[in-house]
Amino acid sequence: MSLENPDKKGCPPEGKTSQPLNPELVGVEFKKGARPAEAIVRVRRPRAFKRIAPGYFVARPEEIKPETELGRITQRVKRFFIGAPLATSDEGHQRLTKFKALAIFGSDPISSSAYASEAAMAILLVAGSAALGISFYLAVAVSALLMMVAFSYRQTVHAYPHGGGTYTVSSENLGRMPGLIGAAALLVDYILTVAVSIVAGSRAITSALIVAGHENLVNSFPPVFNLVVILSLIFIAIMTLGNLRGIRESGTIFAAPAYFFVASMVIMLGTGIYLALKGNLHAAELPPPVVSTQPLTLWLILRAFSAGAVAMSGTEAISNGVPAFKSPESKNAATTLTIMAFLLGAFYLGISFLATHMGLVPGEETIISQIALAVFGHNIIYYIFQLATIAILVVAGNTAFADFPRLSSILARDDYMPHQFQFRGDRLAFNTGIVFLGTIAAVLVVIFRGNVDSLINLYAIGVFLAFTLTNSGMVVHWRRLRSPGWKRSLIINAIGATATSIILIVAVLTKFASGGWIIVVLIPLIVMGLLRIHRHYQNIARQLRVVPEMPPEPMTNQLVVVLIESVNYASLRAFSFARTINAERVVLHVATSPERTEKLREKMAQYAPDFKLVIIESPTRSFVEPLMAYIDAVHSQSPAAFITMVMPEFITAHFWERFLHNRTANHLHREFEKHPNVTVVMVPYLLQR
Amino acid sequence: MSLENPDKKGCPPEGKTSQPLNPELVGVEFKKGARPAEAIVRVRRPRAFKRIAPGYFVARPEEIKPETELGRITQRVKRFFIGAPLATSDEGHQRLTKFKALAIFGSDPISSSAYASEAAMAILLVAGSAALGISFYLAVAVSALLMMVAFSYRQTVHAYPHGGGTYTVSSENLGRMPGLIGAAALLVDYILTVAVSIVAGSRAITSALIVAGHENLVNSFPPVFNLVVILSLIFIAIMTLGNLRGIRESGTIFAAPAYFFVASMVIMLGTGIYLALKGNLHAAELPPPVVSTQPLTLWLILRAFSAGAVAMSGTEAISNGVPAFKSPESKNAATTLTIMAFLLGAFYLGISFLATHMGLVPGEETIISQIALAVFGHNIIYYIFQLATIAILVVAGNTAFADFPRLSSILARDDYMPHQFQFRGDRLAFNTGIVFLGTIAAVLVVIFRGNVDSLINLYAIGVFLAFTLTNSGMVVHWRRLRSPGWKRSLIINAIGATATSIILIVAVLTKFASGGWIIVVLIPLIVMGLLRIHRHYQNIARQLRVVPEMPPEPMTNQLVVVLIESVNYASLRAFSFARTINAERVVLHVATSPERTEKLREKMAQYAPDFKLVIIESPTRSFVEPLMAYIDAVHSQSPAAFITMVMPEFITAHFWERFLHNRTANHLHREFEKHPNVTVVMVPYLLQR
Repeated sequence: MSLENPDKKGCPPEGKTSQPLNPELVGVEFKKGARPAEAIVRVRRPRAFKRIAPGYFVARPEEIKPETELGRITQRVKRFFIGAPLATSDEGHQRLTKFKALAIFGSDPISSSAYASEAAMAILLVAGSAALGISFYLAVAVSALLMMVAFSYRQTVHAYPHGGGTYTVSSENLGRMPGLIGAAALLVDYILTVAVSIVAGSRAITSALIVAGHENLVNSFPPVFNLVVILSLIFIAIMTLGNLRGIRESGTIFAAPAYFFVASMVIMLGTGIYLALKGNLHAAELPPPVVSTQPLTLWLILRAFSAGAVAMSGTEAISNGVPAFKSPESKNAATTLTIMAFLLGAFYLGISFLATHMGLVPGEETIISQIALAVFGHNIIYYIFQLATIAILVVAGNTAFADFPRLSSILARDDYMPHQFQFRGDRLAFNTGIVFLGTIAAVLVVIFRGNVDSLINLYAIGVFLAFTLTNSGMVVHWRRLRSPGWKRSLIINAIGATATSIILIVAVLTKFASGGWIIVVLIPLIVMGLLRIHRHYQNIARQLRVVPEMPPEPMTNQLVVVLIESVNYASLRAFSFARTINAERVVLHVATSPERTEKLREKMAQYAPDFKLVIIESPTRSFVEPLMAYIDAVHSQSPAAFITMVMPEFITAHFWERFLHNRTANHLHREFEKHPNVTVVMVPYLLQR
Repeated sequence: MSLENPDKKGCPPEGKTSQPLNPELVGVEFKKGARPAEAIVRVRRPRAFKRIAPGYFVARPEEIKPETELGRITQRVKRFFIGAPLATSDEGHQRLTKFKALAIFGSDPISSSAYASEAAMAILLVAGSAALGISFYLAVAVSALLMMVAFSYRQTVHAYPHGGGTYTVSSENLGRMPGLIGAAALLVDYILTVAVSIVAGSRAITSALIVAGHENLVNSFPPVFNLVVILSLIFIAIMTLGNLRGIRESGTIFAAPAYFFVASMVIMLGTGIYLALKGNLHAAELPPPVVSTQPLTLWLILRAFSAGAVAMSGTEAISNGVPAFKSPESKNAATTLTIMAFLLGAFYLGISFLATHMGLVPGEETIISQIALAVFGHNIIYYIFQLATIAILVVAGNTAFADFPRLSSILARDDYMPHQFQFRGDRLAFNTGIVFLGTIAAVLVVIFRGNVDSLINLYAIGVFLAFTLTNSGMVVHWRRLRSPGWKRSLIINAIGATATSIILIVAVLTKFASGGWIIVVLIPLIVMGLLRIHRHYQNIARQLRVVPEMPPEPMTNQLVVVLIESVNYASLRAFSFARTINAERVVLHVATSPERTEKLREKMAQYAPDFKLVIIESPTRSFVEPLMAYIDAVHSQSPAAFITMVMPEFITAHFWERFLHNRTANHLHREFEKHPNVTVVMVPYLLQR
């Protein structure tokens, strides 16, 4: 181009005129007041789209292949671990059968039977071995409470077919704050469940290894990443990946261990009770009787009751997960809930019965192991049973993986948690919640170096807080609705609310000093956080909502500033881009060397005479500060002026070459990121090899 | 706004017309073929600028105040450690006097006198104590070589007044590869110098602490961060900060320890020689004579010579740093070089003389300490002398801090290193080189846990490689120039080249197994890296250089795609921005929920009827992939079309709120970062609290 060409406004010549855009791809033009026009020229379709209507396409994910080799490998790895993407319309096919749902939602409560009766007995033991006699009656009471809770949740499941966890029920019936308190308690509990149950499983494995004489192997790991931590992290990773594959596949993956435990338990308890009734069941080795150190007070019994009642943790899961069931959702969920409660109650009662029958005392060996030894003898079946116990402990964490993401997605929907928790990944799972849960649990495991006993204390408070809130909420619900039979339901829930609130008080009082205070402090903090997020989203929604009477703030792109160091093909490209913007156009050069500036001035007159030139001499060689001062100067005189800064940016062929370029551009991007009236546009320039 | 308003092209109404831009700030309009116009309306000046001419400003850094409190604190901290910015024009004032230059450039060579003669003696010792007798004659030979090297560099200083290190001299006279080999050797050596000398100083301090009975203190540190490592890191940090303040201030800071050592040495050697000549000097305690294990071969003598000659490392520094001297640069540099060589030679000779005179044997106690003990006796003066030795060892590293950044800036200027090494910081220092050197040295210290003995072996090869190349280069230089007296100079440099190359061979052969191979492997790797960077920069410069006959690739901004999720004030702002671009304008919506899409369609007809609408239904809920497929589809039909993607971006009031927004925007930015025909523009929208 030359200066003699007056009709091209000083633009450099361009080699060829570029091809016109395909009108079909460009979309639909609005006719004033009318719906989009339908007549559009039909041309060859882009491969990855199905054209439904003019300007309306459906992306066909199977056609979208990454372009780079790295992209293809990444995709293949992702597909291998997570599976191919599922369409939103596939949701119905992703629902759970009762069989899988029991495995997913039941693992946590059912696994508690492995330790809950023992926990109650351990507390009674301070009143001496003789006091253990009442543990069977305590088990009856716990089972009764369990039935009550299960019954209450059955009602909830029917009343809230779209999922009625503590959060929903409390929010709707008791108000926002009780709902959030319940949600916070459950969020914490779910995280603890994953950490505690997976660590318990991993420790059972290392204990078995030590018993089998592999002590050296176990001790050969460094203390920070000991075998328990490593196994736990592996299990957490497997569980995270399994759940990212979608709730249905996670049901398939984790059903085996759950049913393996149920079957083992049924066989053991059945055989045990049969032998006991025949009088043929005796403990392998009875420990010496323990002498009482405290009298058997009501307080002690309440404490034991509260410890045993922890078995109910996770009962909530089903009521939250109703939408995950195959249709009819509520009915299937209620049935699954009943089966789960029945199994848990039966196991709890059975264990307590056999333990009191044989006069077992909790000690170094677990009660459940003592029973298995008495029933099966010291043989392969005993070890298989132990294996089943380990398996269910590990898999119990999976219940939280089904529940946490669901609860957080509901909270995100209601603007109480970041919206990304609502996003469903390739497999329709709530990816953010799953990854978040896995990460936090992994961090807890690493921080506590696999020694999470102290965390178990934190559980119970959250569980009973949630139960109390749900039951109270249901009481209000019945009073409001007065549907047929409401009085009976109300009474059941009122008794439930009273019982669970008493246990809650007992749990807070007994566990406060040994870590319970953390929960008492944590829940209000989480609630505050949830409220903070809510306020933010609400505030923004209010600000963004377009009110026809309130015109938007005026915004005109008044000044385009092209930043260049010298005139080269990359800057010519930036000029071309800037020319397409209707605004005052300026080339700005921060000058540090007079020769370079002079050269630039000459070349500018030759290649970009249609731009105005601003030169800022920077005596201290700084680049960003003078530029910011210039922008400030413009805004000090025209506060509303919108400024577009245009910079050429190099696209390099090799990764390492990036470190040789674009340093200033990146710096600039960061500096102006928070400026409301400035945007930085990088005009890419592809460097050949 | 309403659809009835035909003359506004469907744009939403704007509250007020924005103020016009200040024409003075906007810059100079080019008159065709003429120099920039001078007549421009004078308006109130922006504070941080001085207006020199129309469109020409000078940034006044003292006026540029950060706006935020954090920014102000950062600036104050920076000013405290680094000092106020210096203008490029201040460079002359930043030059070094001979006094300061000797401290900066001489610390490294002069400090070597503290250990070099001892190193030679240690090698001779395998031939028995008797062989030590020749160490004085060896010292004479080393001093002669030193004089030759110094003389050669004096010639270089005059021949290359803009700095004539090994790299420059070799490149100009021997060719590119020898130049780069020399540069690589020196870069490695400078890094080693910092690590080795600072660690040596730190170890001297901890040794002194142990002698003084503070062993518990020294051992109370963990092994990874032992006291030596911590002290070394502190010294490296001080040295890095000191040098960032500029070369002149670093001279002020580090002159005291250097001259303290010189003075102590002069007093000790003077007193020692006086006493020796009077026959009054005797070793405090003579060790038993060492029995010979090897005969005194020429090979052994060569090895001892090579060990002693390491004292010369750092001699190169002055010839590289000529431009840092006050005018007349060359003359001042040559004088400083002579003084430095004289001091080093005298110290080396003096120590060797006193050591052989008293028949000292290197052992647990250093030779220099033995001499000081004999001269001063065991009193306070002896300890002061020890302190001076420690001080110079630490400060010796500073020579590398003056040299490494300078050499790397020269390499960057020649496109062999990343250009940021050429950038001069606030205080005219080469910040990148200084920080790089400090960081690598710190990493070495931490990796080796302060046990850098093995690194000392790596030194010598680089030093003599550089000397050999410089001397050979100077031989070629004289042959080419044939300036008066060239024959004499040529002979001196030829002898120098021969001597240093023999020592180089000896050093490689003797030190190859004990780590020298690392250097032999490393130097070619570094050279390859330098060449790679050079090829890249050259390639790019060639691609970017505007050739008038070759018009730039056509670039027209053909399509503007505004990406929105819903119609709100932020998207209205994005529409306003997009309207200022002359291109086909499209609003693109990735649809995951039919209700939302329908709502969007209605609002679009109301608020942005002048845009075309493209809807892409995404069955798998992915956002980026359908978008990329769309862009690909457009490019598959119009390959050269430039596409501007516009997205609203929220500027949040609090830091934590950032995590609640803009996730997609950031993701998109990354995805399209490497696309040559797409740019992503974020239109900022300020959210109120």
